[in-house]
Amino acid sequence: MATLLHIDTSLNRENSHSRAVTAAFREAWENEHKQSTVIYRDLDAEPIPHLQAAAYYAGYTPATDQSPEERAAFALRAKLIEEAEAADVILLGAPMYNYSIPSTLKAWLDHVFAVGRTAMTENPSLGGKPAVVVTSRGGSYQQGTPQHGNDYVQSYLHQALGTGLGLDVTFIVPELTLAPTVPAMADLVPLFEASRTEALTAAETHAKELLMRLAA
Amino acid sequence: MATLLHIDTSLNRENSHSRAVTAAFREAWENEHKQSTVIYRDLDAEPIPHLQAAAYYAGYTPATDQSPEERAAFALRAKLIEEAEAADVILLGAPMYNYSIPSTLKAWLDHVFAVGRTAMTENPSLGGKPAVVVTSRGGSYQQGTPQHGNDYVQSYLHQALGTGLGLDVTFIVPELTLAPTVPAMADLVPLFEASRTEALTAAETHAKELLMRLAA
Repeated sequence: MATLLHIDTSLNRENSHSRAVTAAFREAWENEHKQSTVIYRDLDAEPIPHLQAAAYYAGYTPATDQSPEERAAFALRAKLIEEAEAADVILLGAPMYNYSIPSTLKAWLDHVFAVGRTAMTENPSLGGKPAVVVTSRGGSYQQGTPQHGNDYVQSYLHQALGTGLGLDVTFIVPELTLAPTVPAMADLVPLFEASRTEALTAAETHAKELLMRLAA
Repeated sequence: MATLLHIDTSLNRENSHSRAVTAAFREAWENEHKQSTVIYRDLDAEPIPHLQAAAYYAGYTPATDQSPEERAAFALRAKLIEEAEAADVILLGAPMYNYSIPSTLKAWLDHVFAVGRTAMTENPSLGGKPAVVVTSRGGSYQQGTPQHGNDYVQSYLHQALGTGLGLDVTFIVPELTLAPTVPAMADLVPLFEASRTEALTAAETHAKELLMRLAA
């Protein structure tokens, strides 16, 4: 029985592009695997607080040696880390806000990075686990576009999730999402639509492939 | 009479390297200019919430046309933007957490980026304003080091503050701050100490130079 950790972060709900694609992944996953467990977090609807010192430093004491104060400070971090450790696959919605990830997602990362457990250790507890990251964005940042190199979502998450946590990261990138609402981008609507279709298809394909890999 | 907006974000207090350097800047500034105004925000002691939809979308209506609901949703954003607009210089502490900025600072940025006012407009309201950013970090990410290219603080803030908001950004980079506490980094303590001294001196120099420029 496979477990999916599904995290959405967009401040938009019905009109969110990242949520539409994570939902497509999840739907394909659940259709293929009726007995699966899905752990869901909506970091916009239920934001987690910014990491503060007590929780940060409690992470340097192994759970069994923590004082009651340390255990209390570490409780949310422990829960978020355990959810990630329990998952066979992690599905993340990561829209681009002001060239980078939402602060909600950075807060989640700051809680989950724990030296000696999930990070900075030879055998990080999330090492090798597949992660599918939906990085939607209003414009295009592909090679050859004027904004190429200004994307601090995909480059950063490659570093943080891949190198930092050791996850096996796949990106799905629905882009030009502002085209339908920004008049100056009207010409780009067909490219946006193609990108959306491609992203929805990729979500479905990845869900099926990951389930097959887990079943093998 | 010059105004300084001073923002700290480190989750550490007495033992924070970024706070030590922003404090040195501020001390030099206040010593040189007794009548200055300092607006201070400690985003760790008083965190600001993650940006949510009501506040985000209220930013698309000019202040004078906002409904009472929009005005209420926009109130914190208005305050943060007005503080930045009122400042002659912006001083930011931006320690590296997990290869990027603290979530508190990303939340501040997400509130301050307002299309048509501070961003995405020909005359952004903060355009040309000097910003001094203290990006402390545990290791070294300089050219020639193994971690070169993995710094998503300076590269990202160059994009977000410089290109995005039009600020005139100067970075001060105290690095190797983990050297005194991590045994494997013991050999790097002299380099850490040199970097700290250089950063403290740069803070003082920049404070004096900026005040001279403002007085000219």
